[in-house]
Amino acid sequence: MLKTRLLHPEMLSALGGAGHGAKVLIADGNFPFGTGANPNAQRVYFNLAPGMVKVTDVLRVLADAIPLEAAEVMQPATGGEPPIFDEFRALLPKEIALKPLGRFEFYDAARQSDTALVIATGEERIYANLLLTIGVVMP
Amino acid sequence: MLKTRLLHPEMLSALGGAGHGAKVLIADGNFPFGTGANPNAQRVYFNLAPGMVKVTDVLRVLADAIPLEAAEVMQPATGGEPPIFDEFRALLPKEIALKPLGRFEFYDAARQSDTALVIATGEERIYANLLLTIGVVMP
Amino acid sequence: MLKTRLLHPEMLSALGGAGHGAKVLIADGNFPFGTGANPNAQRVYFNLAPGMVKVTDVLRVLADAIPLEAAEVMQPATGGEPPIFDEFRALLPKEIALKPLGRFEFYDAARQSDTALVIATGEERIYANLLLTIGVVMP
Amino acid sequence: MLKTRLLHPEMLSALGGAGHGAKVLIADGNFPFGTGANPNAQRVYFNLAPGMVKVTDVLRVLADAIPLEAAEVMQPATGGEPPIFDEFRALLPKEIALKPLGRFEFYDAARQSDTALVIATGEERIYANLLLTIGVVMP
Amino acid sequence: MLKTRLLHPEMLSALGGAGHGAKVLIADGNFPFGTGANPNAQRVYFNLAPGMVKVTDVLRVLADAIPLEAAEVMQPATGGEPPIFDEFRALLPKEIALKPLGRFEFYDAARQSDTALVIATGEERIYANLLLTIGVVMP
Amino acid sequence: MLKTRLLHPEMLSALGGAGHGAKVLIADGNFPFGTGANPNAQRVYFNLAPGMVKVTDVLRVLADAIPLEAAEVMQPATGGEPPIFDEFRALLPKEIALKPLGRFEFYDAARQSDTALVIATGEERIYANLLLTIGVVMP
Amino acid sequence: MLKTRLLHPEMLSALGGAGHGAKVLIADGNFPFGTGANPNAQRVYFNLAPGMVKVTDVLRVLADAIPLEAAEVMQPATGGEPPIFDEFRALLPKEIALKPLGRFEFYDAARQSDTALVIATGEERIYANLLLTIGVVMP
Amino acid sequence: MLKTRLLHPEMLSALGGAGHGAKVLIADGNFPFGTGANPNAQRVYFNLAPGMVKVTDVLRVLADAIPLEAAEVMQPATGGEPPIFDEFRALLPKEIALKPLGRFEFYDAARQSDTALVIATGEERIYANLLLTIGVVMP
Amino acid sequence: MLKTRLLHPEMLSALGGAGHGAKVLIADGNFPFGTGANPNAQRVYFNLAPGMVKVTDVLRVLADAIPLEAAEVMQPATGGEPPIFDEFRALLPKEIALKPLGRFEFYDAARQSDTALVIATGEERIYANLLLTIGVVMP
Amino acid sequence: MLKTRLLHPEMLSALGGAGHGAKVLIADGNFPFGTGANPNAQRVYFNLAPGMVKVTDVLRVLADAIPLEAAEVMQPATGGEPPIFDEFRALLPKEIALKPLGRFEFYDAARQSDTALVIATGEERIYANLLLTIGVVMP
Repeated sequence: MLKTRLLHPEMLSALGGAGHGAKVLIADGNFPFGTGANPNAQRVYFNLAPGMVKVTDVLRVLADAIPLEAAEVMQPATGGEPPIFDEFRALLPKEIALKPLGRFEFYDAARQSDTALVIATGEERIYANLLLTIGVVMP
Repeated sequence: MLKTRLLHPEMLSALGGAGHGAKVLIADGNFPFGTGANPNAQRVYFNLAPGMVKVTDVLRVLADAIPLEAAEVMQPATGGEPPIFDEFRALLPKEIALKPLGRFEFYDAARQSDTALVIATGEERIYANLLLTIGVVMP
Repeated sequence: MLKTRLLHPEMLSALGGAGHGAKVLIADGNFPFGTGANPNAQRVYFNLAPGMVKVTDVLRVLADAIPLEAAEVMQPATGGEPPIFDEFRALLPKEIALKPLGRFEFYDAARQSDTALVIATGEERIYANLLLTIGVVMP
Repeated sequence: MLKTRLLHPEMLSALGGAGHGAKVLIADGNFPFGTGANPNAQRVYFNLAPGMVKVTDVLRVLADAIPLEAAEVMQPATGGEPPIFDEFRALLPKEIALKPLGRFEFYDAARQSDTALVIATGEERIYANLLLTIGVVMP
Repeated sequence: MLKTRLLHPEMLSALGGAGHGAKVLIADGNFPFGTGANPNAQRVYFNLAPGMVKVTDVLRVLADAIPLEAAEVMQPATGGEPPIFDEFRALLPKEIALKPLGRFEFYDAARQSDTALVIATGEERIYANLLLTIGVVMP
Repeated sequence: MLKTRLLHPEMLSALGGAGHGAKVLIADGNFPFGTGANPNAQRVYFNLAPGMVKVTDVLRVLADAIPLEAAEVMQPATGGEPPIFDEFRALLPKEIALKPLGRFEFYDAARQSDTALVIATGEERIYANLLLTIGVVMP
Repeated sequence: MLKTRLLHPEMLSALGGAGHGAKVLIADGNFPFGTGANPNAQRVYFNLAPGMVKVTDVLRVLADAIPLEAAEVMQPATGGEPPIFDEFRALLPKEIALKPLGRFEFYDAARQSDTALVIATGEERIYANLLLTIGVVMP
Repeated sequence: MLKTRLLHPEMLSALGGAGHGAKVLIADGNFPFGTGANPNAQRVYFNLAPGMVKVTDVLRVLADAIPLEAAEVMQPATGGEPPIFDEFRALLPKEIALKPLGRFEFYDAARQSDTALVIATGEERIYANLLLTIGVVMP
Repeated sequence: MLKTRLLHPEMLSALGGAGHGAKVLIADGNFPFGTGANPNAQRVYFNLAPGMVKVTDVLRVLADAIPLEAAEVMQPATGGEPPIFDEFRALLPKEIALKPLGRFEFYDAARQSDTALVIATGEERIYANLLLTIGVVMP
Repeated sequence: MLKTRLLHPEMLSALGGAGHGAKVLIADGNFPFGTGANPNAQRVYFNLAPGMVKVTDVLRVLADAIPLEAAEVMQPATGGEPPIFDEFRALLPKEIALKPLGRFEFYDAARQSDTALVIATGEERIYANLLLTIGVVMP
């Protein structure tokens, strides 16, 4: 067992091969994991059951493991911002503002070749998807 | 043996990796399973023999396992609607209307990258193809 | 998203291909997932971080998804039974008694060709390993 | 669509590469498909749902497609012969007598390297497993 | 050994996964099997030696195994129709007319994604290539 | 198209990687191609249909392409030598005597790691199997 | 060991699957074997050491094994024709004229999907690359 | 252990299959190794830890192993040339001038199909990326 | 770029799938990496050049990333302990004593199925091999 | 093109992953390359044509690239030592004596798991096989 906080072999492998500008998708349980993102990205499945694990569980560990420089979210067409966005803000570095995209715009962004890793969760809340851009570790 | 109704390992695997907006094709025995749909979709073969299993056998199990939000059908150019369309309506959620497509339009739709799963049957009735769009499980 | 409680595509695929007498290992975060079990078994990684997810989280979902007929545990050589064994008993069907094995006996059991699935967790408690035998679904 | 009765591409491929003395397992829904048979045999999954398809559905098609010369069955330790054995006899060539094996003897037989094909069904009846030996097509 | 007339495991597998509108190429011994047809089509090699097996040997078996609805041939630019075209007509269903294509047109047709199967022969006669379109088995 | 007599890419590849003491099996249509021979040998399928191609068709081409130094045949337990053995003798180099083995002895010989190539035919005559040992090309 | 002159299993396999109009590249030791030719072509490496084997060594064997109908060469932008071109002419059939292409034109030609085989040599002479087009074996 | 200076099997394999005009990327620890370069290039990971190994460590060995004819670098948009560029100049052949590209221009160059090898380092200095073009070994 | 000290994707992946009792080999540049250790272990190559990287470079990073509980070394038959053993002791946890094995005993130990990871270095010092056993992370 | 003498990517890759005690087989054109040596060894084919390339051509390059410490040869049962043995002695380091093995003993030695690389040549001389053991590069 590694002594780091992030333990997952496939996430570590994908992140160790990623870098500045590469993107990581943390997707809720209703996201089309296979067809809605870059087909060449590594897939990691944490969708054990509804509500387990949550997008925020993964974000908490990920934000600790890699530098982040941007975050895109899927915004409902109507009805305002979902409550989970505030949880995202609390877990992300302060200087990162959420960039809202429409549902199909979000799929298009996730399908770009920059997406290196897709993490499927069992998150039950809808519109709980986060597309993170990796930043730089300064020496 | 799982205690769920749907038991098939490859269907479960494909559906567990699919989600909102992904599509599932249930194809009759004359459909070109390999060349007439998204080459990256998972193929599952239930075409044991003519008439076994039927498209409606698969639909009955599938409609119980995943939420559905749309259904496309292959409409003959002439001669009106095939009788199987009414069986489709009876097995689908009431709020879903069948959207008819011409034969080559239907192939084009099935070849899109949204198609995650192609289920081959031994259905003998012609024009008995159904392209389903997965919906959302609300928390 | 499937409507079942168990959502994970690789677990569903492995369990849909398993059956009476096949075994499933739920392993704590210190277990040698790769070398300590049947090399041909499917591996599934839930070891996000220390304490996430727990062996008991997986057991709760698994016990709901498949019939169980036996359970083996890894027993410390000294110091009596670990407290987690009582949690195992609470989550398993009443008629199943835990069968304790020594550390190396447990590895030997997990390396047999009957083991179909190895589930890695981030469980921090030590000696928190469970080797379950699948039972029968009666018609 | 082939004009033969047996349509299934993976079954046809496995049977076209098999021959005199090779064995085919038709297994009920509780059989451990992955771990209870020759690991190098082709697996075909017809376990759509409980009761679909049945072992006898597959047998009816298979008995028409290949010559058979022997049949082994899994016999319960107590309680006499399961009723499905008479259905097996009705579908098999008259000259073939069922050879009963105990549960673990049956697994051992199915794990031999002669087993070329494992067909998983959703058969709900227990002890409904059949290990067939392919015979000879005379010129 | 199957009791059907067509015995070849790879041809059976490709045809069992094909259907209405998919194409099958039977190519003479000088055809560029690898580069002159759809790269994703299944390749089957019957080119044992010059003259063995012939395109007409394969056609005779294939025309018995699947329904056909169209046939394209490669027509020499000069010198009229090759004598083998009459043999093709004799082996094909009466209602099918040969559709002649120029050499490079024929390659283009064979390279389309509809081509599911490429069968290489040792046929010595030149311009002895046939691109067949699969039809429908009516119930 | 090669200018040699043997044209088949997979046979040429297997023979180009074989040598003195390696064995080649030419099997009749009832032979268990997959399970009755060395699992690591290359398989080549010429079993188009009953009677096509014949074991002797393959032997004629093979005997021309490689040096041979021994030949084993499968001898029926009763009823004397099958008539095809004389055809084998006529096609093999004069100095090679057929070495008869019983049915299961023959399978055991074909399963040895020396078998480099298994050629499946559609030969209808029974007991028409030949296990050839490659000899030496002298400079 | 085959009795033919060409013995190499991977070259034989690629050529046995090629045909009229397919191309074969014989490249000198400085050619970018991986990135400068059709990515789907078979690669064969004869670049043991500088000067071993030579492009002309390969050409001598190849010209004997397959019919040729055209030859393209890489022509230096300045300085006239390299002396090796006359060696090419001596080894090629008389009726074939060398067609000169510029360096980047030559890469473009070699990257086309018609290129079936790339043969890397250790040839030290520069501009010693040859892109051959396979012809027809007449019956 | 080879007696050459460059020992690494995967680098040797990629370079032995490369040649004039192919490119090699040596990337610093923040480079997106997977998504920021030609997906078909060989990846080699030397990113053991921050600062180990350095881009200049790799360059020193590489410049000794292959001829070089050009070098592109990633130039910061502001702030002038990074100090590491002078180290690059000292290690490269004198006649090679560094060609500066902007960050996204550099990714575009690295994503071209000419890039044969991507070497990931743990280099901590930022903007320490080098895209080398292989030259010619003269006889 | 991960924020951990160990950055290497393949090492992280292998260690994230390892655990208590699994072994990691750090091998000097003369070790037979492929044939002298468990064939199923992950191989990682750091053998850039003689002396780069060193076994002690890897050990320093590894000892920080995972708990260790034992260490085996390859002891020369004559001439006493190599000086590098003291460097090993300085980098390993104090409570770990080096267990010396003879050359062939060491290969035998490394070939056991417990070895999960083989790290090849360019270490020039001979007898500089270390076979580490992973310990336990206590909660 | 590498600046080393040995250029071949697959040989370099196999040798870069080999080391002290690993073995390399250089085999004449009649050797059973596939079945007569360790199935897990890398195969490299230089058998272009009879007499090209020779075992001694490969040995000359190999002896320059790696340290050698032992050499086994295949000794004819009768007729004394083949003349090629003296060529071997001339190309090998002086301190290495040829160790003769009988034909089947030699196969047994080559089939051991220590054999890392099998190099097939077109050598026409018989009994021209050499099984080399890699030595140590001293710092």
